[in-house]
Amino acid sequence: MDYKDSGVDIDAGNEVVRRIKGLARATFTPGVLSELGSFGGLFRLGDSGHRDPVLVASADGVGTKLRVAFMSGIHGTVGADLINHCVNDILVQGAQPLFFLDYLATGRLDPDVAVQIVEGLARACRENGCALLGGETAEMPGFYADGEYDVAGFIVGSVERDRLIDGRRIAPGDVLVGLPSSGLHTNGYSLARTIVFERLKLAVHDRVPELGLTVAEALLAPHRSYLPVIRPLLQDSRGIIKGMAHITGGGLTDNLPRMLPLGTDAVVRLGSWDVPPIFRWLESAGAVPPEDMRRTFNMGLGLVLVVAAGDADEVIGALRGAGDAGARVVGRIAAAREGRAPAVRYES
Amino acid sequence: MDYKDSGVDIDAGNEVVRRIKGLARATFTPGVLSELGSFGGLFRLGDSGHRDPVLVASADGVGTKLRVAFMSGIHGTVGADLINHCVNDILVQGAQPLFFLDYLATGRLDPDVAVQIVEGLARACRENGCALLGGETAEMPGFYADGEYDVAGFIVGSVERDRLIDGRRIAPGDVLVGLPSSGLHTNGYSLARTIVFERLKLAVHDRVPELGLTVAEALLAPHRSYLPVIRPLLQDSRGIIKGMAHITGGGLTDNLPRMLPLGTDAVVRLGSWDVPPIFRWLESAGAVPPEDMRRTFNMGLGLVLVVAAGDADEVIGALRGAGDAGARVVGRIAAAREGRAPAVRYES
Repeated sequence: MDYKDSGVDIDAGNEVVRRIKGLARATFTPGVLSELGSFGGLFRLGDSGHRDPVLVASADGVGTKLRVAFMSGIHGTVGADLINHCVNDILVQGAQPLFFLDYLATGRLDPDVAVQIVEGLARACRENGCALLGGETAEMPGFYADGEYDVAGFIVGSVERDRLIDGRRIAPGDVLVGLPSSGLHTNGYSLARTIVFERLKLAVHDRVPELGLTVAEALLAPHRSYLPVIRPLLQDSRGIIKGMAHITGGGLTDNLPRMLPLGTDAVVRLGSWDVPPIFRWLESAGAVPPEDMRRTFNMGLGLVLVVAAGDADEVIGALRGAGDAGARVVGRIAAAREGRAPAVRYES
Repeated sequence: MDYKDSGVDIDAGNEVVRRIKGLARATFTPGVLSELGSFGGLFRLGDSGHRDPVLVASADGVGTKLRVAFMSGIHGTVGADLINHCVNDILVQGAQPLFFLDYLATGRLDPDVAVQIVEGLARACRENGCALLGGETAEMPGFYADGEYDVAGFIVGSVERDRLIDGRRIAPGDVLVGLPSSGLHTNGYSLARTIVFERLKLAVHDRVPELGLTVAEALLAPHRSYLPVIRPLLQDSRGIIKGMAHITGGGLTDNLPRMLPLGTDAVVRLGSWDVPPIFRWLESAGAVPPEDMRRTFNMGLGLVLVVAAGDADEVIGALRGAGDAGARVVGRIAAAREGRAPAVRYES
């Protein structure tokens, strides 16, 4: 009896590691000191030119969006979902990415699928200037069904301490600037899959007339990174961005309060942006109450900024100049109702 | 149809998050700037007193040792497995931990189990002086069987650049110093479980006479952290430790070469340390060939150092003084055979 008898194939794992090494190496930035294969990945912070660096770190997974990847056999986009989600999670505090590590767990390792996943991770890392510094590939027989896997990741970025974005300066009268999402991003997939596959009984390659897309195309649209359009605004020495919220699980309803100081509420003006067809389609097909939609999906806004009312035109002009044609004012900050915790109010 | 219908319980998740926050807060070190709940965890590096800091990062999981936790209902030790594994992975390059983030994925979240897991993580973080800076708790209906989960984690530590341990100074004539493991640590569980549960048909609470322990006690013994006994040696200004290897998946056979420079081999003297009874029992019950044992399990050595032969007595004395009575010379460094990649040779 040896290890392969028990379901773990060290040689297949080594072959994947060899192919992954090449993909990861192509993402290395000047700070990276190590080759993969040493025990830990090494990143020299000195090159980043900080005086008082704050590291900002976040862990995330792709969630049940993975199941759409399994159904469709398309494994090249989940990497972008994971990287871009993590990049946005630290971006909202003003940080830019330094490096990323992944955790890929499977029942039985399919080298080609593993390489497709890591190719997606590496491509998204390069697009975000983020080194894929290392990771863990775990083969766990019996934990995952054949052909299934879980993938999670962990990002570390840095920001100069006096450039941290923490929402402290947010005050009534400020405005909310919303940036379009590219689809569901990585949230709401348990509900979306129930509606699409159980209620509508669609197959993953069926065409959806309301969307002009197949189910796979609609549900696998990669999570967008907001780094390219936000980065120019981070250079502003006045700190023009007072707060940022990444609209993930819990939607606008749960995520906007995470950036707000005590004494403030976010007032979102419904109808101030175009809710993309996929959300209308899911709402209608699933008979989902509007308040559940807004606590589950991003509804077309993937990132929301708070800026002073007088800065809104400049910020929107900069975002549009950087390529985000859809940036617009979607609401405002108001005084909180009688001493309650920050919350979101919707108005028509 | 709302989100709970589709299998995701946001309120249960929020309750877990609330309880986890308190556990994590108790691990916070002076560098931590954030409370959990902001989008990313914040760690100020300035307080660590580095001139030219190198960040060392590692990702890991617990692997199929988790299945023993599921079978026994004991969820409080997997956190120490994960933290200590990660601490050792960066320690071998000379780094001490700054912070850790976890990824906990379940099918349906059981708040009590989640809290048990995080209690274990938090306790081990405190013992290692490592902040539990954040994490992700993912409920993924249909991905994991009821009562099952996966847990992975990511550690970041730091080391002054000129104190990095990279094996470059290792040369023929140096000696290997081995430190005892506390059991299987987190590797070889697919094979161990096959032997114990399928071949021997034992139940998890059965007593194993050869070990004087139950199966659960033997298989769940937590992975040991080597930080407390190694830390004093890291202060040595001469760099008395030339190289270190954490003996994880692949055993001595695959892990010792990871620290070796080209032109060297590690020669391990079999019989120079006591192989603990659990390995003898698994080898015999599973009829596992000795070379497979050594490429699967740590065989009783969880960490191996390389030091100059003349420093061995001082290092072993320091390790014993720090509480590690079992530290001893277990082999030496030799010139590699005719230009091959570094490898391990075993001699009797």
